[in-house]
Amino acid sequence: MLNNFAIDDHIKSALKEDINFWDITTDYITDKNDKMTVFLNTRQNGIAAGLDVFKRVFEILDDKISVELFFNDGDEIKKGDKLAKIEGSANTILKGERTALNYLQRMSGIATETNAYKKAIGNNKAKIVDTRKTTPNFRMFEKYSVLTGGGSLHRFNLSDCVMLKDNHIAFAGSITKAVEKIREKLSHAHKIEVECDTLEQVKEALNCNADIIMLDNMTLEEIKQACEYISGKAIVEVSGNVNLQTISDIASCGVDIISSSAIVAKAYPLDLGLDK
Amino acid sequence: MLNNFAIDDHIKSALKEDINFWDITTDYITDKNDKMTVFLNTRQNGIAAGLDVFKRVFEILDDKISVELFFNDGDEIKKGDKLAKIEGSANTILKGERTALNYLQRMSGIATETNAYKKAIGNNKAKIVDTRKTTPNFRMFEKYSVLTGGGSLHRFNLSDCVMLKDNHIAFAGSITKAVEKIREKLSHAHKIEVECDTLEQVKEALNCNADIIMLDNMTLEEIKQACEYISGKAIVEVSGNVNLQTISDIASCGVDIISSSAIVAKAYPLDLGLDK
Amino acid sequence: MLNNFAIDDHIKSALKEDINFWDITTDYITDKNDKMTVFLNTRQNGIAAGLDVFKRVFEILDDKISVELFFNDGDEIKKGDKLAKIEGSANTILKGERTALNYLQRMSGIATETNAYKKAIGNNKAKIVDTRKTTPNFRMFEKYSVLTGGGSLHRFNLSDCVMLKDNHIAFAGSITKAVEKIREKLSHAHKIEVECDTLEQVKEALNCNADIIMLDNMTLEEIKQACEYISGKAIVEVSGNVNLQTISDIASCGVDIISSSAIVAKAYPLDLGLDK
Amino acid sequence: MLNNFAIDDHIKSALKEDINFWDITTDYITDKNDKMTVFLNTRQNGIAAGLDVFKRVFEILDDKISVELFFNDGDEIKKGDKLAKIEGSANTILKGERTALNYLQRMSGIATETNAYKKAIGNNKAKIVDTRKTTPNFRMFEKYSVLTGGGSLHRFNLSDCVMLKDNHIAFAGSITKAVEKIREKLSHAHKIEVECDTLEQVKEALNCNADIIMLDNMTLEEIKQACEYISGKAIVEVSGNVNLQTISDIASCGVDIISSSAIVAKAYPLDLGLDK
Amino acid sequence: MLNNFAIDDHIKSALKEDINFWDITTDYITDKNDKMTVFLNTRQNGIAAGLDVFKRVFEILDDKISVELFFNDGDEIKKGDKLAKIEGSANTILKGERTALNYLQRMSGIATETNAYKKAIGNNKAKIVDTRKTTPNFRMFEKYSVLTGGGSLHRFNLSDCVMLKDNHIAFAGSITKAVEKIREKLSHAHKIEVECDTLEQVKEALNCNADIIMLDNMTLEEIKQACEYISGKAIVEVSGNVNLQTISDIASCGVDIISSSAIVAKAYPLDLGLDK
Amino acid sequence: MLNNFAIDDHIKSALKEDINFWDITTDYITDKNDKMTVFLNTRQNGIAAGLDVFKRVFEILDDKISVELFFNDGDEIKKGDKLAKIEGSANTILKGERTALNYLQRMSGIATETNAYKKAIGNNKAKIVDTRKTTPNFRMFEKYSVLTGGGSLHRFNLSDCVMLKDNHIAFAGSITKAVEKIREKLSHAHKIEVECDTLEQVKEALNCNADIIMLDNMTLEEIKQACEYISGKAIVEVSGNVNLQTISDIASCGVDIISSSAIVAKAYPLDLGLDK
Repeated sequence: MLNNFAIDDHIKSALKEDINFWDITTDYITDKNDKMTVFLNTRQNGIAAGLDVFKRVFEILDDKISVELFFNDGDEIKKGDKLAKIEGSANTILKGERTALNYLQRMSGIATETNAYKKAIGNNKAKIVDTRKTTPNFRMFEKYSVLTGGGSLHRFNLSDCVMLKDNHIAFAGSITKAVEKIREKLSHAHKIEVECDTLEQVKEALNCNADIIMLDNMTLEEIKQACEYISGKAIVEVSGNVNLQTISDIASCGVDIISSSAIVAKAYPLDLGLDK
Repeated sequence: MLNNFAIDDHIKSALKEDINFWDITTDYITDKNDKMTVFLNTRQNGIAAGLDVFKRVFEILDDKISVELFFNDGDEIKKGDKLAKIEGSANTILKGERTALNYLQRMSGIATETNAYKKAIGNNKAKIVDTRKTTPNFRMFEKYSVLTGGGSLHRFNLSDCVMLKDNHIAFAGSITKAVEKIREKLSHAHKIEVECDTLEQVKEALNCNADIIMLDNMTLEEIKQACEYISGKAIVEVSGNVNLQTISDIASCGVDIISSSAIVAKAYPLDLGLDK
Repeated sequence: MLNNFAIDDHIKSALKEDINFWDITTDYITDKNDKMTVFLNTRQNGIAAGLDVFKRVFEILDDKISVELFFNDGDEIKKGDKLAKIEGSANTILKGERTALNYLQRMSGIATETNAYKKAIGNNKAKIVDTRKTTPNFRMFEKYSVLTGGGSLHRFNLSDCVMLKDNHIAFAGSITKAVEKIREKLSHAHKIEVECDTLEQVKEALNCNADIIMLDNMTLEEIKQACEYISGKAIVEVSGNVNLQTISDIASCGVDIISSSAIVAKAYPLDLGLDK
Repeated sequence: MLNNFAIDDHIKSALKEDINFWDITTDYITDKNDKMTVFLNTRQNGIAAGLDVFKRVFEILDDKISVELFFNDGDEIKKGDKLAKIEGSANTILKGERTALNYLQRMSGIATETNAYKKAIGNNKAKIVDTRKTTPNFRMFEKYSVLTGGGSLHRFNLSDCVMLKDNHIAFAGSITKAVEKIREKLSHAHKIEVECDTLEQVKEALNCNADIIMLDNMTLEEIKQACEYISGKAIVEVSGNVNLQTISDIASCGVDIISSSAIVAKAYPLDLGLDK
Repeated sequence: MLNNFAIDDHIKSALKEDINFWDITTDYITDKNDKMTVFLNTRQNGIAAGLDVFKRVFEILDDKISVELFFNDGDEIKKGDKLAKIEGSANTILKGERTALNYLQRMSGIATETNAYKKAIGNNKAKIVDTRKTTPNFRMFEKYSVLTGGGSLHRFNLSDCVMLKDNHIAFAGSITKAVEKIREKLSHAHKIEVECDTLEQVKEALNCNADIIMLDNMTLEEIKQACEYISGKAIVEVSGNVNLQTISDIASCGVDIISSSAIVAKAYPLDLGLDK
Repeated sequence: MLNNFAIDDHIKSALKEDINFWDITTDYITDKNDKMTVFLNTRQNGIAAGLDVFKRVFEILDDKISVELFFNDGDEIKKGDKLAKIEGSANTILKGERTALNYLQRMSGIATETNAYKKAIGNNKAKIVDTRKTTPNFRMFEKYSVLTGGGSLHRFNLSDCVMLKDNHIAFAGSITKAVEKIREKLSHAHKIEVECDTLEQVKEALNCNADIIMLDNMTLEEIKQACEYISGKAIVEVSGNVNLQTISDIASCGVDIISSSAIVAKAYPLDLGLDK
């Protein structure tokens, strides 16, 4: 999904950010023909995400480097696992290490965090999805990692799904007025989601034929009532106070979707490193 | 420090990432002349960082918007504080909100985390500094936030300071060999830092006139011995196992610099939002 | 909808394309302080689209130019109408004329063509929508023009709506298999459209709960049968052999959406020019 | 002529325009190793242009794809001709199809239209040439297609030939004054063309040693008189009211060049498609 | 001629080249509101070129800076002349100084060198022109400076004039064969120049109706003979061994054009600086 | 050191600068399959720099070209030496020649000039280093060439070393005040250099523990006194009036570093060319 034409410029820019003129440590101690072999080692359990990106960083630096991957994105990895073998120019390996790891560690951290949320949902039908609270210009990698970790995705950006939030509704006067205005211009290819704080809003949104109703910061009791009321006539999404402690209870209310910015913003980079 | 010529392209790219074609919610409910006023509200205590970036996002969207800032970067902010007043086109405000907050929340989160580390150091002379374990293409914002939070900085990239890490030393055969090779080409304007795992390495590095000696994953006892041995002839940096619990003890060993990737990678976005 | 941050780079690039080193006619006959006033004149009836883009071209060339618009995008314009008055540096006006008109004429041509299709639909409920058969890197302007001309839009790109075309279905084995595979990963925020060549396919697609069913190259009789069969359980889109002669009959079958690449690809640039 | 370094960025940008995050249809139904073979089929007679661009789109998506071309740009192609065989990753083929065709169909349409004009000129010496009324940021492809279709080219941009149009002449006061001013600075490597509405202007332009005289919107009678008057002392170009009905008569007046924006702006995309 | 849309990206890129993260000298000693006034002083006689570029550098850094220019490009300037007054943020002035001067000094150096060649030609009709031996990605500034210094220009790039050099002629077999091949495709808007080493080649080129004949590395005697032979039927250009000592003699042979890479490549940056 | 990811965009941009639409000489006389072999010949003694860049230009034009290098960067080359053999498409070779040579000639010229300065220093310990007076957006190539010619480098940009120049000191009030202010924020990884005009300033700078003291425009006598005074407690750099005549005397004063903009700005392109 992450095609080279889409990620190469990001990687080149990241390499320029980290190398700028040149790497005065590596470029001054290595000679043109010096070779090296290192392994990508796992120091913490988790889910791998970004292995192809990791590999691509080295390939962009040097089209003769060999990066052999032993795992695939989405695989469970354990402390001690060797994920890849990198062989070739010592200059390339020493110079590209940090940038390659910066992608991989963040991406695997997100996949790992997402997976923990997914497991906490258990057998409930709910899906854990991300939000637009992403790092500027890093969203593609973050969304890919959520998907890789077993999560599902919310809209990619502001042009692929309508979402009426409190500020929109306040501005328009009411859910009904906002939806009416939007339907005039909306493509048949896109859905409408409405954020609701109260059951009254839920009713109004359903009345407007919203495709998705988002219950924002509601109690478990309110969530259950809303689900019953909606009873399949719209997709039910829950947001707010979602964490590993609360998600199971939320899921058991029968909601379809649980969205959380935490799976991206609060994920720690997974501990991975290059060693001989 | 973050000049517009340096950040504008990043912001434009982030806006394209989030808006792509157009904002089918906002563009379809607002009319050209609709106006709105909102405030930037603090929902969690911390240190502000990125207020000018926040403002710039709106200015890039619309050169007629008014963003009045009530605080400066580096200021302590408290839950309930109004940080800014944004007035102007409803379209601009609703459309730019998420991108502007995505910068500001991440940056303030880092400043806040850094500040906590700084306070934990107390009266010790040590400074808390960042690392190169940053988000690809977001380093400029992350380093600025560390500085704003009261931290100090490590090198910006691979071309402004030599740093011999374990993989470099292993490759070169020894610290001495590596330093010799580098001195042949190194500019007089740049320093040499050597990462040491043992006291023997510390001695060797000092013998090579390293400007900075980094003690990696040493015990407090080893750190103290190293500081005594070095006794001002090089700058002493400590890395590894640095967190809010350990940093005070490390600092009291008399080190100059404590570096940690956590102040950037494990900082949570600060909770901030736009409301009427 | 077409924010400056989104179109400025396109315009700058177009100006470089047309000017490259410099304009050896204009730059050699004008002096720094020479002024000029011209009007944007309509030489053919139609619908205006791109007036703000036209204005922006001159502003990017020269921040002191004055472009006063007398009409808005979407307005009906008639041969002889003055659409704008441009006053300022003669150098700017003579140099920017062609690029500004190249945007405006193409965009107005599309709006005009779309509008003719819309009128031909008459009182039927069907909407005329565009396709992805657009000019590479000019889609944003083309879609905006369709909307301005009274048309509606299909998906913006491959990531905002699923559309199973014949090649996808052949690859997957059947509509059912394809939909099943997609539902595993598909976001709740996105719809599924299925292209059908036969009534059997329509039935299969409806059975899979496709949100949109596209009837490709069917006869009027087949279209009517499909509409009856679907009877509101999915959105019905028709494609193929759509032109100003056929569209009314297609619309009267009761379809929701009629899509056509012709409104973009076969639209003639509207005849507009700058004169004193 | 269209080197990869010149077109690759355009193609990558077009792919981003069409794919953005990813292709949620194709990426969700194909697996990494799925293969496919399709043919590029001609559904309408014409002249091929853009086959290498078509091929390059797939290569940029995937360096392992095989695209075998059976025809060359400039070849006459007939309904039913297979132009190319594409073999490789199903993901690549399904994802790149639309973008690749968008280039090829537009380019072939222009070549086909140009060729029709050329044939209409018959044995007359006149050449059919294009204008600067091109699609913003698509000129390189359009000019290449005109040349491929058997047309000749006018200047590429404003810096490679002087052309005095009515607005320039009005501004300068007269043709003579404009030419004098330009000759002060003009490079010896560039020509001067003057647009003339009347025979008086033709005389004045010839008197100024214009290299090219363009007869704008003149009657056939006026064109003949102008040709006689000029009698080889300048290149004679005709513009205005050029279409497939009029071009033969214009050509038979003995002019050298007939320029028309229609061969680009009014060319229909040629009907081509990918099938098994 | 150097419009902002054309130079801004070059300047921004140059500022990033020189500032990268930030200016750790200036950013650390100045406060937000510190002001400063400096003058741009001439330390060496010459011709000014690039004053608007100099000004633009500061404006891109800071839209509140004031740069008042006392001279225009093309003016003769003398040691001690104050060329401009810069007032505003101390941070901007100290940070932008070097980049602004790097443009201005190089450009003025080229204008000054060109002007010396022009003066050496004296009353002869010949014009001094530049070549394509320019600094990669700096040609626009170099050509502008040549023109500003009183020189004339050769073609801008490979697409605006045909020039057959020895390698082309050797490849094609003869001048005649090369010209024939080119005339098949060449636009009527472009000229043909032929490089000749011998009088025989001159005759052949003239026979082919070359627009410009370039005499490469000929003796003064050969140049005179060639001029006589050509006698106005083509433009005569001389190249090779052109310097301030030889140019007068070459010019007096009656040639039209003398081209030299030295006016760009061997020009010294003019000594200019910022002081209180 | 000059990785492809860092130079490719510069080269592509330079090719666009020189070719723009296409090469109307080469593209019109060559056919697709025409081959050619040429050699890169040395016409002047010097030091080679930029051979890999030269090669890369052709590779970017054409991935099938063969460029075999017979020398390495840093090698001494003599008039008559063949540096490389280029074999492949005639189109590629004729089209890329000028751009490839423009890089190589400038870079080799700088290496050659730098090397002459280095030799003039003789057995003295001083190193010749460059400055920030470089060609905008060409610094990477210029600094690389200085290093290749045997020179050493000054800081790369404003963020990797503090340098207090006269304008900074005047602004801050004194060296002491400036240094104090900077130390508050300065990273431990970066040095401080102070430019001094007098011995009093030298004393003050040393008192502030400046890492590097630059003696600006001092007499030999003053330089000697300063060196004695400093006696190893800081690195001593000399600047001003450095040329091939004066450098030996300056070096013999015992300074560490001699910086000069002339090795870059006054270097002539080395005479190199492509021939059969």
